[in-house]
Amino acid sequence: MIEQQAVPEAMRWSTENCTISRTMEILGDKWTFHVLREVFVGVRRFEEMRARAEIPRQVLTDRLTGLIERGLLRREPYRVPGQRERYEYRLTQAGLDLYPVLVALVQWGDEHLPLEAGPPLVPEHRGDCGEKVTVVLRCAAGHEPTPRQVALHPGPGAQPRV
Amino acid sequence: MIEQQAVPEAMRWSTENCTISRTMEILGDKWTFHVLREVFVGVRRFEEMRARAEIPRQVLTDRLTGLIERGLLRREPYRVPGQRERYEYRLTQAGLDLYPVLVALVQWGDEHLPLEAGPPLVPEHRGDCGEKVTVVLRCAAGHEPTPRQVALHPGPGAQPRV
Repeated sequence: MIEQQAVPEAMRWSTENCTISRTMEILGDKWTFHVLREVFVGVRRFEEMRARAEIPRQVLTDRLTGLIERGLLRREPYRVPGQRERYEYRLTQAGLDLYPVLVALVQWGDEHLPLEAGPPLVPEHRGDCGEKVTVVLRCAAGHEPTPRQVALHPGPGAQPRV
Repeated sequence: MIEQQAVPEAMRWSTENCTISRTMEILGDKWTFHVLREVFVGVRRFEEMRARAEIPRQVLTDRLTGLIERGLLRREPYRVPGQRERYEYRLTQAGLDLYPVLVALVQWGDEHLPLEAGPPLVPEHRGDCGEKVTVVLRCAAGHEPTPRQVALHPGPGAQPRV
């Protein structure tokens, strides 16, 4: 039983401009992650995404529009012979830079929500190497701290709470 | 203009048991990330979280309950003198293991949604080191591929689409 009441240091700082909040405002909800996953595994066309990920049509339209507005996806025209022009959705550099987020989610899920048959989706180093890719925490001095050895501290953009 | 219609390899595989989906079902929405952030920065009490993160009371109750049920948080009793027993919320090992996900989100946000004043929240190596922590993509052979050099492939748990 804890008896003293220590006020955490973090209570001095505002969450108003928090990077996690701002990032999650953009990434939004689980559907966004489903859509991003499709593009990351190379499924780039509306009907294919809808069929494979079983995303309702309106949700998919909405999330694709949002991801384009936010600069994570771009559209590339294509045409199936005899049909009208359509678009493929491709990752921009900002979208591709979400790879560590996706790999970290996959890694956590495979560890804490494992399937008996093993992981369904494995990030691999392309080309000749082909080895499994993971994310690693590393500090600027080259150490690789465990989660318990990492702390989140206020940086130069931190604003005091009023 | 792309003219041929190649069916992506991923269309052969089901997303039914996808690790990203299963993980996002647990993490859920942006509010869950707000709550996790609070605990990660050391804000562990209901009233403090509510006040600092400006989370509506019912949403906070709901997300805390969910995170406990899913094994990411645990409750620890405390008592402020003269008041009833209350609970602090602390990360379990499974919760702590989300650190790479949080650091990856912070890193992406600081790069792609930068604040003029600099990052508000900086992951640091605790103790004597104190250097900034980032996440790095690394393969089992020790290479550090860029996002473009990583690909998501079906693993042993992948199920064919029917």
